[in-house]
Amino acid sequence: MRQPVPLDRCTRLLNHGPTVLVSAEHDGRRNVMAAAWSMPLDFTPPKVAVVLDKQTFTRTLIEAGGTFVLGVPSVAIAALTDHVGSFSGRDGEKFTAALASAEPGPATGAPLVDGCIAWLECRRLPEPHIEQAYDLFLGEVVAAWADDRVFRDGRWHFDGVDDSLRSLHHIAGGHFFAIGNEVKYTPISED
Amino acid sequence: MRQPVPLDRCTRLLNHGPTVLVSAEHDGRRNVMAAAWSMPLDFTPPKVAVVLDKQTFTRTLIEAGGTFVLGVPSVAIAALTDHVGSFSGRDGEKFTAALASAEPGPATGAPLVDGCIAWLECRRLPEPHIEQAYDLFLGEVVAAWADDRVFRDGRWHFDGVDDSLRSLHHIAGGHFFAIGNEVKYTPISED
Repeated sequence: MRQPVPLDRCTRLLNHGPTVLVSAEHDGRRNVMAAAWSMPLDFTPPKVAVVLDKQTFTRTLIEAGGTFVLGVPSVAIAALTDHVGSFSGRDGEKFTAALASAEPGPATGAPLVDGCIAWLECRRLPEPHIEQAYDLFLGEVVAAWADDRVFRDGRWHFDGVDDSLRSLHHIAGGHFFAIGNEVKYTPISED
Repeated sequence: MRQPVPLDRCTRLLNHGPTVLVSAEHDGRRNVMAAAWSMPLDFTPPKVAVVLDKQTFTRTLIEAGGTFVLGVPSVAIAALTDHVGSFSGRDGEKFTAALASAEPGPATGAPLVDGCIAWLECRRLPEPHIEQAYDLFLGEVVAAWADDRVFRDGRWHFDGVDDSLRSLHHIAGGHFFAIGNEVKYTPISED
């Protein structure tokens, strides 16, 4: 079930490097794309960075509307994640009964895509130089949400949960790894 | 064994969101730190982005020397990855017999840390505004290397390999996931 995540914990939703779905809405038009290239940028206030190609319709909507959502898709929607990354929203509606469904984010109105396990609602921080030179967009997180089956008490809990709820990590060309289990190791002593 | 990775494939070393070790050298001083916040930025020429706190000695070395390496640590060096992220190189030498070892990268001279499974040698792309405002550093990849036990033919191959060679993905507070196996799914048809 979707639960709010405190903003001072929300960068942990992206710490482990999942592929994300970037979604946006403006003036009645919605779109969603897949992005392997995103990361947290700061803790307080929480910020994120994401690379958005100039040709993407999602970028156009973000530039117009000023808000976006980074969703963390699960293994259950690997096919959707691959598919929405394979064509432009200029060429076809992605929010259809057969493809993606979403509801408006409470804080921004940008789409929270069903089947994700976390969502970060963001307000674009305009930085025209790096947007133009590097396709690099920054955002401040204004609300965050996660599926409490796998994110509780401020951290991920994938061990022992159905594998379909694990996050996706892009390899190349529509291939993904699922995130694995927690690593056991003996910390190095200070002595 | 460490083998060169073609530059047009090197962003794939970071696509899946591993935690990295950032290392640098200047004027005989070397340092290394852990960073969960990095990502590819472009394909051609290949570029990367990484967040470097103002207090880090590694950042000082990068600003002075102009080059750095992003290494991808394996599960085998989880304790090292945690430990080099737990104190500043201003307060103690990190390249010691007991801790980390490295050799100079052929392209930059910056340290390639032993026990990583991939290394991206980078030249800093100075962007003073975002470095100051967001601690955000950009680099162009000028050489890339990977352990051919897990990265061959331009992609990762973790399935069937010893788990100690998997990449690390930061959860929080010195806890890591290992990357898991490739996801099997049926692509959505265009019809």
